[in-house]
Amino acid sequence: MVNYPDGRKTTVSAVRIGAGRRGMELEKEINTTNDYYLSQDRAVIYKKPTPVTIVNVDYPARNKAKITEAYFKVPSTTDYNGIYRGKYIDFEAKECHSRTSFPLKSIHPHQIEHLKNVVHHGAVAFVIIRFNEYDETWLIDAMTMIDHIKDSTRSSIPYTWFREHGHLIPYTYFKPVDYLQVVDEVYFKENTEWQSAGN
Amino acid sequence: MVNYPDGRKTTVSAVRIGAGRRGMELEKEINTTNDYYLSQDRAVIYKKPTPVTIVNVDYPARNKAKITEAYFKVPSTTDYNGIYRGKYIDFEAKECHSRTSFPLKSIHPHQIEHLKNVVHHGAVAFVIIRFNEYDETWLIDAMTMIDHIKDSTRSSIPYTWFREHGHLIPYTYFKPVDYLQVVDEVYFKENTEWQSAGN
Repeated sequence: MVNYPDGRKTTVSAVRIGAGRRGMELEKEINTTNDYYLSQDRAVIYKKPTPVTIVNVDYPARNKAKITEAYFKVPSTTDYNGIYRGKYIDFEAKECHSRTSFPLKSIHPHQIEHLKNVVHHGAVAFVIIRFNEYDETWLIDAMTMIDHIKDSTRSSIPYTWFREHGHLIPYTYFKPVDYLQVVDEVYFKENTEWQSAGN
Repeated sequence: MVNYPDGRKTTVSAVRIGAGRRGMELEKEINTTNDYYLSQDRAVIYKKPTPVTIVNVDYPARNKAKITEAYFKVPSTTDYNGIYRGKYIDFEAKECHSRTSFPLKSIHPHQIEHLKNVVHHGAVAFVIIRFNEYDETWLIDAMTMIDHIKDSTRSSIPYTWFREHGHLIPYTYFKPVDYLQVVDEVYFKENTEWQSAGN
């Protein structure tokens, strides 16, 4: 069963694929969505730049520094953060090419630790996972996923687990990954467990 | 006069310089401070990676991608953000080598716009400015500074303005830029204007 943000539950058969969607990766789609949220004054959420260690910089022309040697660094935090409804928002987003499960090695232990830390300080934190084979994008509450991992001996999370515990993120042309619609439902609905916990 | 976080007001004569401080730049000092805050479970605040556009990547050895061509990008946001006391925190930090004024060209218009946006959504937002010549590090509320710039025709802000409107950030060995001590005073003290505004 699928938990849609409007409370509707249904079995996934086929998710409509917008014409503009094919070939666009998750990161680009989230950036497009964030740009739209910003333009509508709804939220201020950005992807952080890719962390690199810069070793050498040349100055071939005035005012135009050229980095000629740099290396990718392991990120110490998640990729996305910002503010929504006065709350600190933090999440990681991953694509998954398997039909059966999401490999845990896709998420660095640093990032799990970071999600725990921000939740402890009152953040709204989650993970967005796109199952490419199904063209489905799921939002999973960070602590729900972390608790599951803690109690599990597997090196991956089955797809069926996401169907049970995740929330399907709707797609629209201007908001290809309209995750705030799900965030409203999961974290800001009155009398949810999250709010009654005093956050 | 200087507004110290403990409410004490005094004239600046000489600020004690810790032995470990000389030669350490502002960014490193803030990172050290943030690491300490994190280790003490006080806040989760990070510097964002420097934004670069990656043009070419070589793979000289397995698992070791080498970026051979990249360029610095103009940042669209500020350098630092995170969560403290359940609030979204956002700030920019700059060093200033002039004795008389802080040149406004040091801060990109994008960054000013970003600070306005996050304040509008309920953030605690500020700017940290180090006057190297005085070895003083000041915290200035983002909107106080933005309002000043809006009403000013100058291309810089006089040092004296910071002494009047800024808050001197104390230095300690483990927290070389202990800005949360000032944040507590400015944004979290009971009955401050900021809190009574409902944020």
